[in-house]
Amino acid sequence: MDFESIIRNIPDFPKPGIQFKDITTLLKNAEAFHEVIDIWKSRYTGKNIDAIVGAEARGFIFGAALAYAMGLPFIPVRKPGKLPAETIRENFELEYGTDSLEIHIDALKKGDRVVLVDDLLATGGTMAAICRMMERLGAEIEEIVFLIELVPLKGRERLAPYPVYALVQTMLA
Amino acid sequence: MDFESIIRNIPDFPKPGIQFKDITTLLKNAEAFHEVIDIWKSRYTGKNIDAIVGAEARGFIFGAALAYAMGLPFIPVRKPGKLPAETIRENFELEYGTDSLEIHIDALKKGDRVVLVDDLLATGGTMAAICRMMERLGAEIEEIVFLIELVPLKGRERLAPYPVYALVQTMLA
Repeated sequence: MDFESIIRNIPDFPKPGIQFKDITTLLKNAEAFHEVIDIWKSRYTGKNIDAIVGAEARGFIFGAALAYAMGLPFIPVRKPGKLPAETIRENFELEYGTDSLEIHIDALKKGDRVVLVDDLLATGGTMAAICRMMERLGAEIEEIVFLIELVPLKGRERLAPYPVYALVQTMLA
Repeated sequence: MDFESIIRNIPDFPKPGIQFKDITTLLKNAEAFHEVIDIWKSRYTGKNIDAIVGAEARGFIFGAALAYAMGLPFIPVRKPGKLPAETIRENFELEYGTDSLEIHIDALKKGDRVVLVDDLLATGGTMAAICRMMERLGAEIEEIVFLIELVPLKGRERLAPYPVYALVQTMLA
């Protein structure tokens, strides 16, 4: 399926010069959404995965569906103050300033094998923070999976040595 | 399955006197998470549902998994400024002040039959705003489904005449 043609391009959002990838048109296409999850499910079945990890908000959509499809736990990574039990936190850089994400300290245990999920790989800063969380918890990263990779932003290099898999690789960024 | 026993209670979060329902322990229990979605799937199969609607962030987790399970579109409701195409907005009251949610104006069409999903029904203000969006778009609400209903807060009354279904009904609020 040509997923790229199903993802809507919104010029100049959220600001001039940025072409935003609107994945809501793919979510609205039940066949496309189902196929995305099924491709990932096939890829990770038999790999002894213990859990699927995704960050709010769009990582929740793809991550939870994949976890359900595979019969695995879904582990949410959230913005500060949202998770009520004991957490660890990682900071990451934004264009202006920094932001943080948290995960429950008991969400994963040492040696758990995980797949990290998000919709879009840009510079990779957010996902790199999630990788550091996995390292602190002792979880092993099987792969990091995205729907879309904005290739020119070189997020894949930033996430090395962890392997990255993306269904759509685009030069528009 | 006794879902209530799998949901962690966190006393005094986010402030003294509130007992927070931590659904991350249910998400971490793959069997419980799968069963929640499968019960809902059974309930709505054969009801001519066109789409599943859920709001960020936790509504994305349960809504997207249900949409995948049923082979239906998932329609996200988001905080202002997150959806890139043309939207409609509804405001709702918080304890202090107001907040807003948006949906793409082309996300649903008149006559579409939808199930609205969220994790927890408290006073129902957020979900009532989503119901108003559905009315403006001409969508028909089959039912509003929650994992947990905090019965004393009477959210069910606020959402009437739309039917509400919750897997866990608790008097703790």
